Formats: sequence, C-alpha cells, structure tokens
Amino acid sequence: MDDILLMKRALRLASKASGMTSPNPVVGAVLVKGGKIIAEDYHRKPGTPHAEALVIQASGEKAKGATLYVNLEPCCHTDKRTPPCTKAIIRAGIKKVVIGLRDPNPKVSGKGIEELKKAGVETVSGVLEEDARRLNEGYIKYITTGKPFVILKTAMTLDGKIATPEGESKWITGEKARAVVRKLRSSVDAVLTAIGTVKADNPQLTARIKGRKDPIRIVIDPYLEVPMDAKILHTPPETIIVTEDRGKMSGNIERSGIKLITYNRRLDLKWLMEKLGSMEVTSVLIEGGSSLNAHAFEDSIVDKVMFFISPKIIGGRDSFPAVGGRSFRRLADAYQLKDVKVKRVGEDILVEGYVRR
Amino acid sequence: MDDILLMKRALRLASKASGMTSPNPVVGAVLVKGGKIIAEDYHRKPGTPHAEALVIQASGEKAKGATLYVNLEPCCHTDKRTPPCTKAIIRAGIKKVVIGLRDPNPKVSGKGIEELKKAGVETVSGVLEEDARRLNEGYIKYITTGKPFVILKTAMTLDGKIATPEGESKWITGEKARAVVRKLRSSVDAVLTAIGTVKADNPQLTARIKGRKDPIRIVIDPYLEVPMDAKILHTPPETIIVTEDRGKMSGNIERSGIKLITYNRRLDLKWLMEKLGSMEVTSVLIEGGSSLNAHAFEDSIVDKVMFFISPKIIGGRDSFPAVGGRSFRRLADAYQLKDVKVKRVGEDILVEGYVRR
Repeated sequence: MDDILLMKRALRLASKASGMTSPNPVVGAVLVKGGKIIAEDYHRKPGTPHAEALVIQASGEKAKGATLYVNLEPCCHTDKRTPPCTKAIIRAGIKKVVIGLRDPNPKVSGKGIEELKKAGVETVSGVLEEDARRLNEGYIKYITTGKPFVILKTAMTLDGKIATPEGESKWITGEKARAVVRKLRSSVDAVLTAIGTVKADNPQLTARIKGRKDPIRIVIDPYLEVPMDAKILHTPPETIIVTEDRGKMSGNIERSGIKLITYNRRLDLKWLMEKLGSMEVTSVLIEGGSSLNAHAFEDSIVDKVMFFISPKIIGGRDSFPAVGGRSFRRLADAYQLKDVKVKRVGEDILVEGYVRR
Repeated sequence: MDDILLMKRALRLASKASGMTSPNPVVGAVLVKGGKIIAEDYHRKPGTPHAEALVIQASGEKAKGATLYVNLEPCCHTDKRTPPCTKAIIRAGIKKVVIGLRDPNPKVSGKGIEELKKAGVETVSGVLEEDARRLNEGYIKYITTGKPFVILKTAMTLDGKIATPEGESKWITGEKARAVVRKLRSSVDAVLTAIGTVKADNPQLTARIKGRKDPIRIVIDPYLEVPMDAKILHTPPETIIVTEDRGKMSGNIERSGIKLITYNRRLDLKWLMEKLGSMEVTSVLIEGGSSLNAHAFEDSIVDKVMFFISPKIIGGRDSFPAVGGRSFRRLADAYQLKDVKVKRVGEDILVEGYVRR
C-alpha cells in the first residue's frame, strides 16, 4: 500500500475528532504490517490515550516490525497527562514511522523524530505535510503563539450585504450552509459575537449536534445591554461578557453568575485574544455584524475567513455590509487573502482563505 | 460518431463567432457521411452565408445522403439577405438534420423543421438544447422581446466593495479577469456606463482584441458633465450620451457630432432598453458603479450577472458597494439568481447567474 493513501487514512481518522481535542492536536494513526492494516485509531480528547498508544495497545505483539503512519510527529515530552509516544513506539519494536508534519510545539519539534532515529527506528516526515498542517491549523497557531486561531465567518448576499437596514438577516444563506456553520461551531473552543447581533437575532450560537461539544460564547457588550432572557445566557456550556470595567458593579454582576472580561476605554481585540489564549481558548469563530468584522480586521486578529455567499442581491447603501467600520483610503491597504478555496454548499457558495500578514 | 459529440462540435464552431453575428444568432454546422465529417463551418457575420449554406457548398455532390448537425433550427423565411437554408438542405439531398434548439424567432420556430419533414428529410431536435440555448441567449431575448439581453458585470472585493470612498478601483481584480471582461465587451453590441465611472476612471470600455469588434458605448450623463477629452468620446466605434432633454441645446450638441438619447425627468432604464432594441442593439453589458447597478436592478432590466470577486477585503461603511441605491425593507424582496455558476479566473472568482423574474 502506498504512503500517500495510508497518510490520507490517518488524516481522515484524525479529523473525526476535529474540535474535540483542544488544546491538543487531532492525531490519527494507522499501523501496517505485511501490507495489511493491523490497527488504526485516533486521539479522542484531552486526558485520553494518544492515537499512537491506542494502535500499539490494540496490536500487541504484532506491532513488532510494523510501520506506523501518523499525521503529527509523536510526542517525546513527559509534562502531559499521557506518557510520551516515542518511548511506546520504541518499546513495541515498530520498525518505521511515517509522519505528516513535524510537531510545531517547541517542546517536541524534531525531538521526537530524533529520539526515534537514535533508537534505530526509520522515520520519514513531510508526507501530505500541507494537509496535515491545515488539519491542525488551530493547534499550530495556539502552540506557537499562545493566542487562539481566529476564523471570521459571515453569511452574505452576492453583493456583500449581511442584513437589511432594519437588521433582517434570517436567513440569507440556506439550510446546508447553516448546517456547515453549526458543525464549525462544534470544532472551535469559542464563538465571539457582539451585542448588536444578540439584540437583532437572539442567537444561541451553539452547534446543537448530538455527541459534539458546544463552544463557549463571548459577547462584546460595552454597556451591558444584553437582555437577561437572551438565549445566549441560558445555553451551556457558558457565556462570557466582554464589557467596560465598572469597578465594584462588575464584581456584583460576576457574583450573579455571569462571567466578565473587563477592559478600559477602547477594546483591543489583540489583547482579548491574548487573554483568551491564557484561558486555554485555542480557537475562536467570529460571528458578528459589520462593526465587529471590521474591528477584527483592524486589530489584525483574523487568521482565516469563511464567507458564505447566497446567490441573491440586496443592494442599498443603507444595508449592512459584511465588513463595515472605518474605510481605507487606498486600495493597496486592503487585506489580501491567500490559499483561497471556493466550494458550493447547497445553493450557496463558500469562499475560504487565509489573511496575508 | 455520436450525436452529442457532433452537436458539441457544431456548438464549438458556432461560438467562434460569438458577438460577431448580431443581430443574427451564432450557428455552427457539421456535415457527416459514412461516419466521416465531410464539411464543417459557421456563420461569420450578418450578410454572409449561413453555416448550413457554407457546408452544403463545400461538400457539393457529397452532401447527398449526408446528416447535418446544426445548433439552431435552419431558417425558412425569405426576408433576409441570405436565402432560406431549408430549401438548400432539401435541394442538396441531405437525409437527416440533427438540431440543437428550435429557433425562438417567431418567423421560424418549428416551421423550418416542418418544411424539412414534408420534403422527406428526417429531423431530430433538442440535442444539447440547453447548451444551444445558452450560446444564443442574447439572440433569443432580442428576437422574442425586441429588447437587448442585459448582462451586469461588476469587479468587487470579497466583501462586496467596488471602490474606496475616493473612488479608487484600479485594479480590484487581476489581469486574467480583466482579459475576460475585454473579451466579453467584444461579444456584446453595447456597453452601458454612467458619468460617475467616466469621471472616476476615464475608461475606454472597449475590447481591444485584434480581429474582434468593439462595442458602442452608452453613457448615462444627466447633466452633460462628460469631459470633452474623455477617452470614451475618442475611441471607435461610437459613443451615445443619454441625457436629460435640453431642447434646442441638445440639437446643438448633436450637430457637434455627439449622438444623444434624451429623456425627461427620471431615466427609465426599461424605456432605454426598448429604445436600444429599436436601434438593433441586441445585447448590453452594464459596467457602472453602485448607483447604475442599483438602478438596473430597480428597473428590472438585468438578465444575467457576472460578479468578478477578488479575494481581498476593503471594508468601510463609506466604501462603494457593488450595488447601492435604495435599500430593501425586507429580505424577501431580494433579487434571486438561478443557474448559478462559479469559476476561478486567475486569482479571482467569477460568479455568474440569471435573475429570476
């Protein structure tokens, strides 16, 4: 069997746990011997065994002389809840390890491979490296910067409007696109929105998918206008309000059970991302309106955009644009996207891309 | 050889003359005998022989017993510069005619097929009918309504902006997208724009492709603000200014060599399209700004949209949106698109669709 096919299999296994493993990466492993797959599995969630450990355990004595396919470099550090995989691989007598991506975690990066080589295990790395990188893009951002990976999602008409002047936005995109968004929510640690969206749409911003987790919700609400019966305050797992510091009053609100993040004067979204990173929020999905979207670009926190485009035209200078805020004076200052992908999602179109720095 | 493949061949031949045959349709013909193509050709421009006549002439005696593939029903009427094709087909002894689309021209529609049948020629129609319809969509609109087929093209950022607040729009899309637009211009009879675009960009709005025609340019300029040195006034074939009626003054301007179409009070674009139709303008490409685009939707003249989307974000509430104008009060009033296609054009994305009535 060929390395590419087996690595694809490992990647597909890994992706089954997308959004479930934070702050860990998603990892799939396939163990092959004599041209046959003797075990395959993936890491389920933090605190449970790594994919490598699972396949080694499942194959027992048979692991001796086998080849392991794994999308990420096996760990070699011991400051985790689970034992290092390199040791287990060596102990099991695995002959060869084929790796998608070297672990960008500075505690691992290359050291796992080195340890394996020293013990006489053959290693190959960089197989489907780009796919392996994409699959763990959130993890990579977080582990290398301490800040969450930020996806900005919007649902707009072909002419770039997200709502009528009255704020009507239900629904611009179709059922399939909305289902993709719900799945997306289940794959991030947090959804970030603003009070305008909460007041206009009263959304839950949860995934509502059986067996998958829901994200925590973070609402930017400078003047604490969120209605006490807003759905977002009454759906698990939790909601955090980001608001201006009100001194003693903020303390009172927190005692009433609502978690606050407070700031002074202007909210710096870079600062907020650092704060969330320190709370082990590894990925954030922005689902806001014109202003929050503009704010996110202005503060340079956006890593990836996902624009769902419905094939209709609203028009109107007073309709809400996908990205509002201050205007550029020069085209050269526009935010450029790279690695752009276009997909059809039901009747809608999804344009994805990464923000060039 | 199979009917589908041969009809595809006829369609491909026909498309070589896209935009050159107005007010005629584009037509390609393939003559087959004994499993071999004995002649193939296409209609070049008005006043020259039809595709059917060309292949019959080229094959001479061999046409007897052959099968003719043609994307449009052969003509049977005699009020044209060229003789009816049905007669030529019968006279040549062609055994069978395979047709893409029945001619929507009320003077033909089915009568050509009937005449062939009566003369003992076998006919099959509706082969790749949808492709045949698309290829002559402009002709079909014009021949059935007397009004031009209207394409609205825009070049915008992913967030739906066509210019910065200062009007900077050069260039939002890349070289490949602009080349596609130039080709598009060569395939329509006229390009419609507004004075705002002329003042901001000073465009030529021509195709500038060797061997292809350039469209006439039509500029909506209510207060006659077009600068006398504007490129659009000095590039062939001609430019028409659409302006408010100024009585005697309008006459003076026309005598100075500039063609005018005048209106009173509000310009009704439906009226303008009827006017252009009566001047044998069969297709119009709208290349304007936020206001003209909105005006075209509001007056329901748009048949097809072509949105070129550059993967960048401008943002800004004051930037120019692709479609401005009055705002809808309800989402349900949005203009819906159908038969949507998405293509990559260099680094840009092209979304095409037809406006639902």
